[in-house]
Amino acid sequence: MIILVVNTGSSSLKYQLFDMDKKEVLAKGLCERIAEDGHMDYKAGDKTVFDKDIALPNHGVALQYVIDALTDSEYGVIADMNDINAVGHRVVQGGHLFNKSMVITPEVEEAIDRFSVLAPLHNPPALVGIRACKQVLPNTTQVAVFDTSFHQTMPEESYLYPIPMEYYEKYQIRKYGMHGTSHRYVTERCVELCGKDRSELNIITCHLGNGSSITAVKNGYCYNTSMGMTPLDGLIMGTRTGTLDPSVVSFINEQTGMSASDVISMFNKKSGLLAVSGISGDVRDISKAAAEGNHRAQIAREMLLKSVRHFIGAYAAEMGRVDAIVFTAGIGENDIDLREKVCGSLEFMGVKIDAEKNNTRGKETEITAPGATVRTFVIPTNEELMIAIDTEALAGE
Amino acid sequence: MIILVVNTGSSSLKYQLFDMDKKEVLAKGLCERIAEDGHMDYKAGDKTVFDKDIALPNHGVALQYVIDALTDSEYGVIADMNDINAVGHRVVQGGHLFNKSMVITPEVEEAIDRFSVLAPLHNPPALVGIRACKQVLPNTTQVAVFDTSFHQTMPEESYLYPIPMEYYEKYQIRKYGMHGTSHRYVTERCVELCGKDRSELNIITCHLGNGSSITAVKNGYCYNTSMGMTPLDGLIMGTRTGTLDPSVVSFINEQTGMSASDVISMFNKKSGLLAVSGISGDVRDISKAAAEGNHRAQIAREMLLKSVRHFIGAYAAEMGRVDAIVFTAGIGENDIDLREKVCGSLEFMGVKIDAEKNNTRGKETEITAPGATVRTFVIPTNEELMIAIDTEALAGE
Repeated sequence: MIILVVNTGSSSLKYQLFDMDKKEVLAKGLCERIAEDGHMDYKAGDKTVFDKDIALPNHGVALQYVIDALTDSEYGVIADMNDINAVGHRVVQGGHLFNKSMVITPEVEEAIDRFSVLAPLHNPPALVGIRACKQVLPNTTQVAVFDTSFHQTMPEESYLYPIPMEYYEKYQIRKYGMHGTSHRYVTERCVELCGKDRSELNIITCHLGNGSSITAVKNGYCYNTSMGMTPLDGLIMGTRTGTLDPSVVSFINEQTGMSASDVISMFNKKSGLLAVSGISGDVRDISKAAAEGNHRAQIAREMLLKSVRHFIGAYAAEMGRVDAIVFTAGIGENDIDLREKVCGSLEFMGVKIDAEKNNTRGKETEITAPGATVRTFVIPTNEELMIAIDTEALAGE
Repeated sequence: MIILVVNTGSSSLKYQLFDMDKKEVLAKGLCERIAEDGHMDYKAGDKTVFDKDIALPNHGVALQYVIDALTDSEYGVIADMNDINAVGHRVVQGGHLFNKSMVITPEVEEAIDRFSVLAPLHNPPALVGIRACKQVLPNTTQVAVFDTSFHQTMPEESYLYPIPMEYYEKYQIRKYGMHGTSHRYVTERCVELCGKDRSELNIITCHLGNGSSITAVKNGYCYNTSMGMTPLDGLIMGTRTGTLDPSVVSFINEQTGMSASDVISMFNKKSGLLAVSGISGDVRDISKAAAEGNHRAQIAREMLLKSVRHFIGAYAAEMGRVDAIVFTAGIGENDIDLREKVCGSLEFMGVKIDAEKNNTRGKETEITAPGATVRTFVIPTNEELMIAIDTEALAGE
């Protein structure tokens, strides 16, 4: 089966075409600066065919160029757009309705629209992508894969906020969590690597990238996760605060007159590692500056380590036991020093990693040292593959 | 030395008179509903002498009645008000200036006033109490003991918030922590009970009462604490949310038009265990209802357990090791089932308690079971005694 995976941002469209029988990525690329100056790249297999500025007035035009490239007689990888059996879309917010991926019906589309209030930066562009695909590929099954659905197994004590119930009932204010597709992918790989039934395993999955979240997977299913109603909560991130005394919002509002939503926007875009270091939100820049003696970069680095330790320890205690820890995403897969320093602080709970095995970047590796009671893994995430797998399953039904 | 300890709330004045040489509480009581209908009680030793409605137009009058009672020819415990060598005041917020208790000079008084912006419900009444004492006891040394000072040893990575630095520099927005006098008291008792130097010990102190906070004490000094800039943050409490995605503040503001400070007021007064259970903010009521099968009370109870486990696990991981855990305050000292269920979830990190030893309320007890690598204690807190000790030390200088 041939599956196109589409991940639409407000001004971008990421795509990947999978041949599921051969387990192969046929082509992939990114359209960006849509409705601005426009740029697109296209790779067939591992080879970049083009990478150029091109007018992209809207997502529909961008998608048409993607189809054109995929079916081009010279550098295309399929003969006809009807060779695409199904399209899988990444959707950030599925609210409380979707605990699994769904074929996109008018009802599903309507619900994605409705949940835009909870993900105003993410759900509207996903809808634009879905509608563009419907137009360009009107006869092809479309599937929505939600970032929130893996977290729908959380029990009430994890997802409810302790505020008057009317806010949950009327406005659906609760914890949803994010990066669910990534947490699910690495959980399933980890279960395979452990060679046990998922119900026997408590796993802590650390998705550490530009956005970061840590999930407590109890008996194979999500028990708690560090992101909240929105992706602002939890760990310190590149430009996001993570968890913070909510009183700070009203205090800044009272002291400066800034509106609550402007404060939250500042917490999302101008805070986190960027604000502490004063130089960058990118952990690589910060680590370099910290090593060169920049004090604020050193604090930022320490805050990141502390934040990761915090949630691993917290979730181990909440679950009562942890069998495996997984590091994934940009920082999790590549920051050897972070893994060493975080795990070095967890020996009291049976974590121990091997320095040599840990000397790895972006490769699936078990890094557990002899004598550890908790197994530790680096597992590169693959959200696109997870979306393709779900899409294939639903399109084949 | 005779020390009067005063703890002033917006409409209350709690007092305790200590004979420090005999290590004895000579008298104590509470004036409440000041500037309302007025009520006062007075105990000499353990005996209630009176407990009556009485007009208390302001804190000054209340304090005069306290002095009258203490020096009464019939039921008083000292002959003359000049027998009081010094007065110790509980002050909630000492900002970043005070890492220890201070004799109250005009400069200290001015600073307490200045930090009212950070503790608008607490510092102003403390100032009223200080001024009333100055008037009634003009020649007596007054000492301020700050709830925040124990937490002033936190490193930058614990107390800084990852928001643009100008908010720290201009508005002193950072983590301060609360209940410091209680955390310090039980830390010092725990160090004595362990028979080691404080620098050798990592301790997690759980002050669980109507307000709750957990502190990570690393090498004998505060490394991190769960309350933030204000007492709203951290664990779920009777009527307070604890930690929560800050975006919820702006989301409620946008959805309902409620101001940010009204949202925070709701998070402080109408949330927490009260909101989840729908019946009470008192853990005893909730536990009873939960045992009788009330589902919302059961969730509230679970959220409390989860919240305590969360911070103990988190702080163990942040410190890299924990030698002792202390439970204190109303819930910590009396909730046998909570201690059992929390510690039962911490066996993976070497915590193990003895069911029989744990069957205790409000008494200093080690509850560690054989085989545990972490020692666990119940230590009744005594903030008044801690204030008296500091006051004696400063008054004697």
